[in-house]
Amino acid sequence: MSPSDTDLFVEVATMLADAARCVVRPWFRRGVAVQSKDDASPVTIADRSAERVMRAILAERLPSHGVFGEEFGQENATASYQWLLDPVDGTRAFVTGRPLFGTLIALLKDGVPVLGVLDQPVLEERWVGVTGRPTVLSSPLGGIIGTRKTVLLADAEMSCTSPEILETAPHDRWQALKAQARRMTWGGDCYAYGLLALGQIDLITECGMNPWDWAALVPVIEGAGGVITSWSGAPLRIGGDGTVLAAGSAALHQQAVAILGGQS
Amino acid sequence: MSPSDTDLFVEVATMLADAARCVVRPWFRRGVAVQSKDDASPVTIADRSAERVMRAILAERLPSHGVFGEEFGQENATASYQWLLDPVDGTRAFVTGRPLFGTLIALLKDGVPVLGVLDQPVLEERWVGVTGRPTVLSSPLGGIIGTRKTVLLADAEMSCTSPEILETAPHDRWQALKAQARRMTWGGDCYAYGLLALGQIDLITECGMNPWDWAALVPVIEGAGGVITSWSGAPLRIGGDGTVLAAGSAALHQQAVAILGGQS
Repeated sequence: MSPSDTDLFVEVATMLADAARCVVRPWFRRGVAVQSKDDASPVTIADRSAERVMRAILAERLPSHGVFGEEFGQENATASYQWLLDPVDGTRAFVTGRPLFGTLIALLKDGVPVLGVLDQPVLEERWVGVTGRPTVLSSPLGGIIGTRKTVLLADAEMSCTSPEILETAPHDRWQALKAQARRMTWGGDCYAYGLLALGQIDLITECGMNPWDWAALVPVIEGAGGVITSWSGAPLRIGGDGTVLAAGSAALHQQAVAILGGQS
Repeated sequence: MSPSDTDLFVEVATMLADAARCVVRPWFRRGVAVQSKDDASPVTIADRSAERVMRAILAERLPSHGVFGEEFGQENATASYQWLLDPVDGTRAFVTGRPLFGTLIALLKDGVPVLGVLDQPVLEERWVGVTGRPTVLSSPLGGIIGTRKTVLLADAEMSCTSPEILETAPHDRWQALKAQARRMTWGGDCYAYGLLALGQIDLITECGMNPWDWAALVPVIEGAGGVITSWSGAPLRIGGDGTVLAAGSAALHQQAVAILGGQS
């Protein structure tokens, strides 16, 4: 991407996040109806409206780009640039009135995430990551971008959205990692990655993740000085195994991969 | 309590919550040092400072009342009125930068909770409950006080702070309840009770709770139309078994007690 392309794409991504914020915010704590999708994950009118609005903007601004959204599938599948949209990541948090869900907007170039936005519509917190640039935070709650560096696994604050993760992941390896970390906090969805980028937590493990769940987070975490890969240490790509491991430093990441990746 | 006593106590409780907010807020996301207490629960300078400030105010305003705080123990233990203080409930959320911890302030008369404040210092959300009065919410995020009424267990949004609860609770009964509920969301600490009071979730189960963890929540939940007891349906009192069950309606509460209380 040329610098002027990058600036244009950041401008469009910001417009997408602003629009999603406007559409999602009015439904927060308003008793919105929740449907269950085929995979039993919840979806609401807020998810659907926000994705429609973002697709409409992309069709105007960048019609040659592809779009792949959680709710409405793929368009322009062969384009080099692909936008991945998750209008409400953490619908469970959204429908229970917790302001820790997020809108995820990613741009991939030839399958590699190059731009990511994590936006919290209610708290008006936004993380913007671009490959090769430092991640930028805009938040009324405060916080300074930059992962924590000198953290041993024994001192690491660990986070995971839900223990149901254990139902599809290698139990014993994950338990071994958890046992060595300092503390575990549950819940969080995409918001936990924002906290890792702020040096508030050190380690996140997830699995069963779709591309729209992790794509925006790659530039955000990397631009904050962290490392984000699969559990075995592989770069996150479409068609991967759905595991995600994020760490504040390369050293901590290496220790976690040694345990989770089973290279013992 | 006479109405004028009640008004005075609400005024003092509000002053306590305001003071705690001022003391806690500056430490949020500032890399505050975390000590582990004897029971391995984390504590910070924010916890300690906020409790000291609240004790100082009570000593001025209501010197004949007792005080029992999580960090500095009990004073005036034989007084009829006892203030129970938990300056930062959810220290784990606090030290990981999540704005879902809370300050809990309760007044007990002869062992019965009669007034409760749940305050979120960062989001500036506050729930105030007084026995016999409707719970009052003050929140920039929105929400309307009142639990959800017509919810079957199969439709109930359930919440629990952490799966580690299972290590000390009757596993099989809790699993049976979880299996019948619609959805489970993890994390939350005291904030989940605020969400239940707003009709955002329907059922909370916790155990290993101390009096300062639940005392403020009793008037908040009851004043919002909900029910809060132990897992066996007993009123929450000091010296109880440490289990807490909160439900949006009496019907839902009854179903949960039948499963958790083992009256099958």
